[in-house]
Amino acid sequence: MDELSGLEARQYKNMMFDFYGSLLTEKQREIFTMHYDEDCSLGEISKVAEVTPQAVADILKRTNKKLYQYEEKLGLLKKYRFQQELLIEIEPKLNPSIFELIKKMI
Amino acid sequence: MDELSGLEARQYKNMMFDFYGSLLTEKQREIFTMHYDEDCSLGEISKVAEVTPQAVADILKRTNKKLYQYEEKLGLLKKYRFQQELLIEIEPKLNPSIFELIKKMI
Repeated sequence: MDELSGLEARQYKNMMFDFYGSLLTEKQREIFTMHYDEDCSLGEISKVAEVTPQAVADILKRTNKKLYQYEEKLGLLKKYRFQQELLIEIEPKLNPSIFELIKKMI
Repeated sequence: MDELSGLEARQYKNMMFDFYGSLLTEKQREIFTMHYDEDCSLGEISKVAEVTPQAVADILKRTNKKLYQYEEKLGLLKKYRFQQELLIEIEPKLNPSIFELIKKMI
């Protein structure tokens, strides 16, 4: 995913976090969220998390690596995107209540 | 899932393996498959895997624990079962080509 622009990469990482965040440690979740969701700098995070900025950077790097590994192995985000495209395609062909049921299903 | 009978528990474990097997190590996958899919005894597995029967038992125990943890955190099997029930419910209401598309989607 290296070819993604900064904003796209951030969105992609946040989506992976939505799918796989439960597999991370509490510390990894906390630091990831502060950085990618709340837009805190390494320095700001290091004060709250009581570790050095270098340690924050290392944790973020390891966390990102884990998220990419989970996506490579389970592919839930890829599947989600495929489903969203198909949903757009089938919506006009379905009655609204069935369509709502299918949206809930996936 | 302790209240499941032997056969049901085995089926449940095999289904968890289908969802989360990619997150296990090669060794865990090999031993799990020999035991739960090919029905090999601990003694038979220990000869092939070149470890003691006790080590086989330990690996199986750890592997099962990991599978239950993944299911607890990600719930993919629970979701799959929910989807299968809904599919049965909506099939009579849909035209067959749309139904096939939805089956592929999930």
